[in-house]
Amino acid sequence: MIRFKTDTTLQVFDFTAAKNALAEIKQDPMAGWLTVPIDQEELGRLKLAAQKIQGDSEYLICVGIGGSYLGHKAVIDALGNKSRTKVLYAGNSLSSQALDEVFAEVGTSDFSVNVISKSGTTTEPAVAFRLLKAGLKNKYGVNWASRVYVTTDANKGALHDEAIKNKYQMFTIPDNIGGRYSVLTSVGLLPMAVADLDINSMLDAARKAAVGINSDFNLAMSPANVEPTSIVLREAVRYATIRQMLYSKQGKETEVLATFEPRFATFQEWWKQLFGESEGKQDQGIFPASVVYTTDLHSMGQYMQQGRRNLFETVVKFTTPNDRAIVVPEDVENLDGLNYLAGQNLDYINTKACEATIHAHRLGGIPVLEIEVSDFSEAAVGEMIYFFELACALSAKISGVNPFDQPGVEAYKTDMFKLLGKPGF
Amino acid sequence: MIRFKTDTTLQVFDFTAAKNALAEIKQDPMAGWLTVPIDQEELGRLKLAAQKIQGDSEYLICVGIGGSYLGHKAVIDALGNKSRTKVLYAGNSLSSQALDEVFAEVGTSDFSVNVISKSGTTTEPAVAFRLLKAGLKNKYGVNWASRVYVTTDANKGALHDEAIKNKYQMFTIPDNIGGRYSVLTSVGLLPMAVADLDINSMLDAARKAAVGINSDFNLAMSPANVEPTSIVLREAVRYATIRQMLYSKQGKETEVLATFEPRFATFQEWWKQLFGESEGKQDQGIFPASVVYTTDLHSMGQYMQQGRRNLFETVVKFTTPNDRAIVVPEDVENLDGLNYLAGQNLDYINTKACEATIHAHRLGGIPVLEIEVSDFSEAAVGEMIYFFELACALSAKISGVNPFDQPGVEAYKTDMFKLLGKPGF
Repeated sequence: MIRFKTDTTLQVFDFTAAKNALAEIKQDPMAGWLTVPIDQEELGRLKLAAQKIQGDSEYLICVGIGGSYLGHKAVIDALGNKSRTKVLYAGNSLSSQALDEVFAEVGTSDFSVNVISKSGTTTEPAVAFRLLKAGLKNKYGVNWASRVYVTTDANKGALHDEAIKNKYQMFTIPDNIGGRYSVLTSVGLLPMAVADLDINSMLDAARKAAVGINSDFNLAMSPANVEPTSIVLREAVRYATIRQMLYSKQGKETEVLATFEPRFATFQEWWKQLFGESEGKQDQGIFPASVVYTTDLHSMGQYMQQGRRNLFETVVKFTTPNDRAIVVPEDVENLDGLNYLAGQNLDYINTKACEATIHAHRLGGIPVLEIEVSDFSEAAVGEMIYFFELACALSAKISGVNPFDQPGVEAYKTDMFKLLGKPGF
Repeated sequence: MIRFKTDTTLQVFDFTAAKNALAEIKQDPMAGWLTVPIDQEELGRLKLAAQKIQGDSEYLICVGIGGSYLGHKAVIDALGNKSRTKVLYAGNSLSSQALDEVFAEVGTSDFSVNVISKSGTTTEPAVAFRLLKAGLKNKYGVNWASRVYVTTDANKGALHDEAIKNKYQMFTIPDNIGGRYSVLTSVGLLPMAVADLDINSMLDAARKAAVGINSDFNLAMSPANVEPTSIVLREAVRYATIRQMLYSKQGKETEVLATFEPRFATFQEWWKQLFGESEGKQDQGIFPASVVYTTDLHSMGQYMQQGRRNLFETVVKFTTPNDRAIVVPEDVENLDGLNYLAGQNLDYINTKACEATIHAHRLGGIPVLEIEVSDFSEAAVGEMIYFFELACALSAKISGVNPFDQPGVEAYKTDMFKLLGKPGF
């Protein structure tokens, strides 16, 4: 079960703003993710599709950008791909070199394509899909369309229409769930199932976390006194409340999400989109940044310890980060002076580095929040996704902005379409 | 030749602070990198060592952390490894999972190890080196030490002493160049040579950029009137001066380094260490962050367009980013509406996305600086490294801090040694 901890100087007991925010979120037409809805018919089809892809493809190429790819890439990078079918990503930039690398890796191997786009007209994925379609037709002839899986709007849009026409197998992006909150819908579930992750376990954990959302759970109580079904909710409320207090009362304008596990790095990117896109509007918002320790203690560490004190740090800690132990060997000569660590598990040393860093940074004058997660299991990650989504929506709402829109994303697109001579611009 | 451009509202004509800063830097005992020194004997040995490694190893495992690995990884990721010998990285974290992945990739292949550490007692690389030594002894028996290459202090330290004792081939980390300024010394040159990059061309370009450093180059003139040999120097002075003006006069506390080429991402990490570690001290410093577009226009883009206006953006643009063109194919049905782009090179579309983004972000109220680089060639990258190192040292000096120390890095180490029971702590 996820646990949120803070420096004792940061205890907060007034959850009125969070309570009001939650009541408003429950009324929001874009809060579909709040109850982790699942269409069992679609889930069944999705699992069969994943099995087919695992059977006939060495590669699944996921075509999508932003919320259409970051969530499942985050989870697959964190948990590891357990399937023989590798998952690659295309259409998430306009770099020809990045696309070339995908083509080079696939080579002459068998592949399938999962296009994930609400509209089907977003430039990056649409361009990549055109090129991949040409590749599929070239390699598989008349059967090419059976290797295309689309995740899109249920009723309308260019990709929806093309799927009907070409008989692609279709999965749904729900109308009431925006891109950055969509990882536990078909958007994320199909690629994660292809990677052989236990999506049932992930969904169950998220639904369990959500179970008390419509009850009047007691926010102010200590964890020991909270209904177990409401602990994740309560921890999300505390995280949201404290980060808004740090921002609005203490001038902490940047949040640095820290991990001690490199495999968590893509998840940090997902977190940046979730929080940055939800809160960064109306000239406001906590700036989201990330570091991977101990690596970055030797780069950003100096700044964190002694730089400008307008930031706070949130450390995501894993109680059991890895299954296999690597032990420091004894060395009779001990020229490197490391024998005091001989026989120790590397993960133990990493844990001590984490404790030391939190202590040192607090002494250095930055507030440090801690999020404790049990391990890199599907259940722990499913729960964590729900925790962050709820905390993010609450935090944005408390700060007075809409957690579910992204009006600024259109600005560069409009300019780009003009420069490229798109009809109508 | 690198070019620095700004919004016309950001022109600066007073370079007094930069002039004074440069005079002080020239006197600093840690400014050895300023003239790009090369020991020809060492360079010759280094090239022979690289050839031997290419001949007898499928993998070179570089063991180092912070400035000991970020620079060469940045360059190899940007330019691509052109050799049959792959370069892997270990000892840059305490994650057992990360180390396991390196072991799994190497498997039973032939490998060599390059340990890069001034002291040889930094925990992360020292632990990794112990484990790799065991692997080498196991695989190669009495000849194991001929596959170890160390880059360390010329005269002292645990790694130096061990190298003498075990007859490892040795290369030098100069006393007057700190880790984050060391990529163009043996620290970076050996791995880059193993990756078959043209290190002569890289060094020549950096030395050419440095050629006017001891002349009285005219900072205030327009590029057309500057001695060609001083253009890179002048552009570095302008970048340093303008970023300090944005920070101290306009309250811009965060700099976001943006690229439109995913292969530049590790270089951004190198830039973060360079600037963050040089400037982040005495409760001061511009917070360095990075984004990869157009990918992150669909995550951090919303924040950049409409979030808190306490930041500025620096876009690194490549005039010719890639050799091979990928062209958008025509589609008779045009369901995705992309035919207006048919026949266009993807890099052209990416360039227009870049121009549109700069325009949209300026309209959104954030100052945008531009750094124009010709291509992903060794010469362009060598020049760019020098440009950033000089700009960083100047900027830190103008802000009143020492660009070459990192006193805060010890804090977590001291705490960690206590927790781990290291003798003497």
